[in-house]
Amino acid sequence: MSNFFGQNFRITTWGESHGPAVGVVIDGCPARLPLTAEEIQADLDRRRPGQSDITTPRKEPDRVEILSGVFEGMTTGVPISLVVRSSDQRPEAYDEMKQKYRPSHADYTYQMKYGHRDHRGGGRSSARETIGRVAAGAVAKKTLQLAAKTEIRAYVTRIHDIAAPVMTGFPTLAEVEANAVRCPDAATAARMIERIKQARSEGDSVGGVIECRVRQVPAGLGEPVFDRLEADLAKAMLSLPATKGFEIGSGFAGTLLKGSAHNDAFVTKGGQIRTATNHSGGVQGGISNGEEIVFRTAFKPTATILQPQQTVDIHGVEAELQARGRHDPCVLPRAVVIVEAMTALVLVDHWMRQAAQNQTFRF
Amino acid sequence: MSNFFGQNFRITTWGESHGPAVGVVIDGCPARLPLTAEEIQADLDRRRPGQSDITTPRKEPDRVEILSGVFEGMTTGVPISLVVRSSDQRPEAYDEMKQKYRPSHADYTYQMKYGHRDHRGGGRSSARETIGRVAAGAVAKKTLQLAAKTEIRAYVTRIHDIAAPVMTGFPTLAEVEANAVRCPDAATAARMIERIKQARSEGDSVGGVIECRVRQVPAGLGEPVFDRLEADLAKAMLSLPATKGFEIGSGFAGTLLKGSAHNDAFVTKGGQIRTATNHSGGVQGGISNGEEIVFRTAFKPTATILQPQQTVDIHGVEAELQARGRHDPCVLPRAVVIVEAMTALVLVDHWMRQAAQNQTFRF
Amino acid sequence: MSNFFGQNFRITTWGESHGPAVGVVIDGCPARLPLTAEEIQADLDRRRPGQSDITTPRKEPDRVEILSGVFEGMTTGVPISLVVRSSDQRPEAYDEMKQKYRPSHADYTYQMKYGHRDHRGGGRSSARETIGRVAAGAVAKKTLQLAAKTEIRAYVTRIHDIAAPVMTGFPTLAEVEANAVRCPDAATAARMIERIKQARSEGDSVGGVIECRVRQVPAGLGEPVFDRLEADLAKAMLSLPATKGFEIGSGFAGTLLKGSAHNDAFVTKGGQIRTATNHSGGVQGGISNGEEIVFRTAFKPTATILQPQQTVDIHGVEAELQARGRHDPCVLPRAVVIVEAMTALVLVDHWMRQAAQNQTFRF
Amino acid sequence: MSNFFGQNFRITTWGESHGPAVGVVIDGCPARLPLTAEEIQADLDRRRPGQSDITTPRKEPDRVEILSGVFEGMTTGVPISLVVRSSDQRPEAYDEMKQKYRPSHADYTYQMKYGHRDHRGGGRSSARETIGRVAAGAVAKKTLQLAAKTEIRAYVTRIHDIAAPVMTGFPTLAEVEANAVRCPDAATAARMIERIKQARSEGDSVGGVIECRVRQVPAGLGEPVFDRLEADLAKAMLSLPATKGFEIGSGFAGTLLKGSAHNDAFVTKGGQIRTATNHSGGVQGGISNGEEIVFRTAFKPTATILQPQQTVDIHGVEAELQARGRHDPCVLPRAVVIVEAMTALVLVDHWMRQAAQNQTFRF
Repeated sequence: MSNFFGQNFRITTWGESHGPAVGVVIDGCPARLPLTAEEIQADLDRRRPGQSDITTPRKEPDRVEILSGVFEGMTTGVPISLVVRSSDQRPEAYDEMKQKYRPSHADYTYQMKYGHRDHRGGGRSSARETIGRVAAGAVAKKTLQLAAKTEIRAYVTRIHDIAAPVMTGFPTLAEVEANAVRCPDAATAARMIERIKQARSEGDSVGGVIECRVRQVPAGLGEPVFDRLEADLAKAMLSLPATKGFEIGSGFAGTLLKGSAHNDAFVTKGGQIRTATNHSGGVQGGISNGEEIVFRTAFKPTATILQPQQTVDIHGVEAELQARGRHDPCVLPRAVVIVEAMTALVLVDHWMRQAAQNQTFRF
Repeated sequence: MSNFFGQNFRITTWGESHGPAVGVVIDGCPARLPLTAEEIQADLDRRRPGQSDITTPRKEPDRVEILSGVFEGMTTGVPISLVVRSSDQRPEAYDEMKQKYRPSHADYTYQMKYGHRDHRGGGRSSARETIGRVAAGAVAKKTLQLAAKTEIRAYVTRIHDIAAPVMTGFPTLAEVEANAVRCPDAATAARMIERIKQARSEGDSVGGVIECRVRQVPAGLGEPVFDRLEADLAKAMLSLPATKGFEIGSGFAGTLLKGSAHNDAFVTKGGQIRTATNHSGGVQGGISNGEEIVFRTAFKPTATILQPQQTVDIHGVEAELQARGRHDPCVLPRAVVIVEAMTALVLVDHWMRQAAQNQTFRF
Repeated sequence: MSNFFGQNFRITTWGESHGPAVGVVIDGCPARLPLTAEEIQADLDRRRPGQSDITTPRKEPDRVEILSGVFEGMTTGVPISLVVRSSDQRPEAYDEMKQKYRPSHADYTYQMKYGHRDHRGGGRSSARETIGRVAAGAVAKKTLQLAAKTEIRAYVTRIHDIAAPVMTGFPTLAEVEANAVRCPDAATAARMIERIKQARSEGDSVGGVIECRVRQVPAGLGEPVFDRLEADLAKAMLSLPATKGFEIGSGFAGTLLKGSAHNDAFVTKGGQIRTATNHSGGVQGGISNGEEIVFRTAFKPTATILQPQQTVDIHGVEAELQARGRHDPCVLPRAVVIVEAMTALVLVDHWMRQAAQNQTFRF
Repeated sequence: MSNFFGQNFRITTWGESHGPAVGVVIDGCPARLPLTAEEIQADLDRRRPGQSDITTPRKEPDRVEILSGVFEGMTTGVPISLVVRSSDQRPEAYDEMKQKYRPSHADYTYQMKYGHRDHRGGGRSSARETIGRVAAGAVAKKTLQLAAKTEIRAYVTRIHDIAAPVMTGFPTLAEVEANAVRCPDAATAARMIERIKQARSEGDSVGGVIECRVRQVPAGLGEPVFDRLEADLAKAMLSLPATKGFEIGSGFAGTLLKGSAHNDAFVTKGGQIRTATNHSGGVQGGISNGEEIVFRTAFKPTATILQPQQTVDIHGVEAELQARGRHDPCVLPRAVVIVEAMTALVLVDHWMRQAAQNQTFRF
């Protein structure tokens, strides 16, 4: 259970790595949103395997089909069902995993939880599940864009120990997409790509950090006390495969400042109340304050490596496992669009939740 | 909206800083749990103001009253209503805040969201709201303890730049409670306390990091794909006032390892499948694997400082603000029990969610 | 679990018949709603025991206290906690019920479900639980009234076999409140009152039907396909103690018409699209069409009667039970305001759910 | 929004009448349930058009495909995605409906709610949406059957004014399926069929009542106070197209009894606590008591009739509408399996909700 996300703009994803298809149902998308399959496809293309020489060489076109919810080019307010058929499957590559648990994968825990699992490619725990998130995220992005001109940009800021310099401006999509690793700093990107290739050549893997920034967020989004905007963003990020950490604004480093240095003084700029600094990361008391939302997510090194590893089989007998197959030596380049998707889903949901307050008893 | 938390063991907290009372309703606590007000009070006493010389000197006994749900010393399965009356209120200390927004507080965002706010002491955004969480958390802890012997221990590992050495064993409650800052390493604790006192003497504040560990967690808790255990823990932590980051297991530092070093090899110990290391932090694929759950939460320095600060008033005119009153120069010592409470609430909820699977179609 | 109701305007009720208090927390009430305790009290007074000579003679003032969520006479958007202290308790009147199950009460099923129950006056299953609903309903009514001028009127149309003539106009509140049984037809009301008194004199009880009508409902409320307006109204009514049936518009009798007679022809009146008849009861396809909403709810005769009854004790041994105490020979007069409350809660929730659609992509 | 149903065994349906497909995602089905497409198909065949000479002559095979959640013949605990492709579509039959609102259909209300609608065959408001419910209901039925031997039987008890005699025993599936109208009393069934044919020959339609009975329901299902079993059943039934009423146990007629006659005396039969009568309909205080659950649902006459009708066009101009196409003159025969499906969905959900209580603190 819990394959759904959101309260108002609610998505339910389904599908396993080696099943016939994966998909998502969006329940709650507003009516009259212009929407085409091509717009969704554009984001899926940023996620699909085989898109560059630092991702898995698997070939999956990942073509999306809209089965419901759109009529004459516009949403109708009813559920939008999106399906992507699978094609490039080699389930036999996973025969060994039926008997042996892959370290730091979900094989063992799914077995403990359910007593029965689809071992092929991780089944439901595969990152292939995120196709539904990206497809739904594209619809959420478009909704936010039309409704509030909100713009979401994620990018890689660190791969292993190679960190990009601090970004000052808001990177353009073109800057992010200019290289295979999706780091808007070209020089750093080149070094990151080398590090990923090196790890792959060693049969190893690397992780890193993705930063995400959002601008044109109306002040007032976020629901105290439990569904704070940063709480829902944290949940969204930690619900992604391979994530181990989340921080917003000043984050962990902010704990090294004293309050007098950390507080964001209010100022008036151009007739608007703004903050002089943004250690808060665009959220105060769980509610957006109109400044840029800035947060970072830590992704661990890919669990699948092409080196022999110690493990146990399903009877608890110790064994050695040697992964085969075609894997990403680093998940971050393909995860950038997934981070954007989850961010969009959180924001559009909160934007809709605030709607009732907006139409009631205002001055 | 969203003053509730949990799906099965669901709590709703209510109350403002300077209202007549704060409280919580627990809906879904199993019947036949032995429960007394004293057990709940024990945790509230760890949270209450005035408990040591590094917390606010405000005097609030914070006595809990059970208004429903317990009969003849046992829960009955119906809602448990817990209320704490307020006593030591000085609303006049906040008159200035009616007109001026405090930096890095929620005054401005509440005004933007609702168009009307209780300015006294932050109203609903006050940390006083966490009384309900701690009270409900005590009930959750007891449920877990009786049902699965699950043990939860939070403690301070860093204040400002003073970090405790890595904990090897599982600290006892007595070790955590042995000093005012709640760091189980006595020598570090003494230095932390000095740092907090120093910050207070400067009219300033400090933040830091709380670590939480849980043992005796049954394998199989956590619901893929969105309600992963770490996702719900992340949300729980980021829903707390003053938090800016969350990491589980290896966390952000884990991104500096390669996959070959990061993966947790499976081994057999004492007839049980275990992992040789625990970079995963007790969760794989969103589901507990039976190892210790370990995570950390970053708390920013307290926003209220006793120095003049630049801000604007409600009309956008720049102004200076000088906080008065009695405040914590560091929230972490009192937040330890709150972290435990939220952890317990997440775990008991997932434990109940797994119940249906446990009673169905097992071997 | 499930002591909460609503998605946006969400209430959680708590409290047992003979506990120290009962109450409700409203989460999601819009900010800036003017609200006083007196407004809530007015509806509680219509529900309280001892209000007339055909209700239980128990004396409970049922005074409501607002513990949170209202500041300077206006809601602030945070939870509204309402509490009513209990006073006139005679738990010893229920000692026999600790050992014997009362027929057609919830004693036996609570015992089966929870394995432990508060036997005093039915504990949580007591109609005293509805105090929280009425208090929250008063807030919902006010919200609807200010937001959309929506008006809700419930009244008794049948007691036992004494039925009021079909109402043509929309009864005023004064007409409903003009007599103790709350039937706006005075002549019928007199006969109903006699029937209730007669049942009471026999130690027996009677049931009947309450009709509810709502006008000024904006077209467009109700969420296909599962949260249709009539589905949520049906759930709301069947969640009330002692209810056995619900029908909307033509209801069960409508099944005796053919389609050609049952269909509501569309016409244009005063420039607005209306229907010539209203067999639909104001709802088509689960969505309000702007016509009056009309529905009826069946209440069974009160289960507590003052005659000896056959039953079993908690060990399954057959026994005779003789109820004592002070009971309503007919619940309908006091249930009228409860029906209104639940109706208001359903409508305000759907009105808020429609808000996001209303602010998006309109012409 | 709200195209999902259930808390634990949660379904989301999607698809429009004339879209490429309809389907359902089941989130929360327990793992290790043996499941085949054929089992689901069996119930879809009871719902599909063209199955007899009293239903619409449209030919749709309605073949179900399982796209996820089942591996090696058993569910895995992850979402089950079921899809039915559409084939026999004649959207041009609905061209007139683009401009004119059909009386007592959802055309007008969808337009008011969303400002944009798929007019072809009612779009989302079409009864074709119930395919997903029936498919999911088949899975729910199987779960209940394996878990608790629970048996659900719905059948037609009245068509127009032709009522079957009171059923004494629990009808077998064969008895229900023995005739086209699905009334287990053969003589009455023949008269019902005649009435339906007569209505069709007049270009008219008829409604009626479906009764549903459930046996082998464990005592203890149902969640006070809002998610009472009868409340969720009422909502489930009123969420079906064309329903106008619901009653459980004695229902509306029970209001004509006095309490002394209506109360169900407890007795001991075969060592078990039972009730001598069953006016309660198997539910007391919102919780199942182990007796048969018995309820009835009223279905209005089909809104689509083949006679000219008065209506307005989308500009409010009065017009005449003459339906064409192939329609059911009476929905009840095909609705029987839909009632069973919704009943199963309610029960399996409550059975899972009770699981946590069952595994906790029992004697």
